Amino acid sequence: MLPEGVAIDPLTGAMSSSTGEYSKRLSEFRGVYRDSAALEKMLAERGDIETYRVVEHRQPGSDIFFGTTTMAPGKVGYEYFMTRGHYHERRDRGEIYYTQSGSGLLLLQSRQGDVRTVEMKPGTCAFIPPDWAHRSVNTGSATLVFVWCCNQDAGHDYAEIAARGMRQLVLDRNGSVTLAPNPNY
Amino acid sequence: MLPEGVAIDPLTGAMSSSTGEYSKRLSEFRGVYRDSAALEKMLAERGDIETYRVVEHRQPGSDIFFGTTTMAPGKVGYEYFMTRGHYHERRDRGEIYYTQSGSGLLLLQSRQGDVRTVEMKPGTCAFIPPDWAHRSVNTGSATLVFVWCCNQDAGHDYAEIAARGMRQLVLDRNGSVTLAPNPNY
Repeated sequence: MLPEGVAIDPLTGAMSSSTGEYSKRLSEFRGVYRDSAALEKMLAERGDIETYRVVEHRQPGSDIFFGTTTMAPGKVGYEYFMTRGHYHERRDRGEIYYTQSGSGLLLLQSRQGDVRTVEMKPGTCAFIPPDWAHRSVNTGSATLVFVWCCNQDAGHDYAEIAARGMRQLVLDRNGSVTLAPNPNY
Repeated sequence: MLPEGVAIDPLTGAMSSSTGEYSKRLSEFRGVYRDSAALEKMLAERGDIETYRVVEHRQPGSDIFFGTTTMAPGKVGYEYFMTRGHYHERRDRGEIYYTQSGSGLLLLQSRQGDVRTVEMKPGTCAFIPPDWAHRSVNTGSATLVFVWCCNQDAGHDYAEIAARGMRQLVLDRNGSVTLAPNPNY
């Protein structure tokens, strides 16, 4: 395991060196967005587009690792493009998100039912405390790119958010970013 | 412990919210730079100037934390302004440095005697593996600012580097950044 310098493109999230990546496509969000008809219409018109991509730099044997998340702008019905949202498997593991370009909202909730948001904009570092579920939402018209850093052993627990979503939805209401209670929760 | 958005000024390292900070002044580097006469001359002429400052955002109960380091440009003799340099107390703890402005060199060495450098420039994320000593060197003419992220329990072990320095010096040789063996090592 050697030191390394990794160049990060703030507009695309591309990294000069990475160890893995994955992307999520629109079809994988069936049942996640409220407006199923709008999702099917978008799939028919635009195909199974990539809505976000995660690139990581993970050195075996290191405690921490980092990477980028790059999110396309868009909406399914009134809901902005978003990540799945997850808790960490380890409840003592937090995370840092550092926005590089674009604009978004980081939606968080605690196990106790608290909901918080942190504005995502270039130069803002979001602190995600341990055991807070978090979902990134691209509320802008440009690509949203952020660098994240956490412990490799944090793990992802997607199940709880996948089952019924988060407590609040992030919606476009007449051009304004608006929180609304999730009827499914 | 709540989520939080912290704005970071890439040119000064100032943070909109922080939990602590410290700065290091020139007089604290007596015995660190090779050219003692040059250091005393600078102290006499410019006073006990701040050579770098560290601001941190540390939430009790979180695993990771982050902050900024802001380094003035300058030289003591042929040696560029630099941080003290340290290992982490915990040998399983690495760190991430993400340069925001300025230009520098991250000097690293392993316990086994390996030496590596990583160029510090805006947009470059440096991965510091566990158990590598690291020192930041401002080799440019502007302020060097970087964001760092690591585990709170990493700890700092300054003693070994304080005793004899690092294996290599980072020198200005006719305007070029040059590594040279440290005669004291």
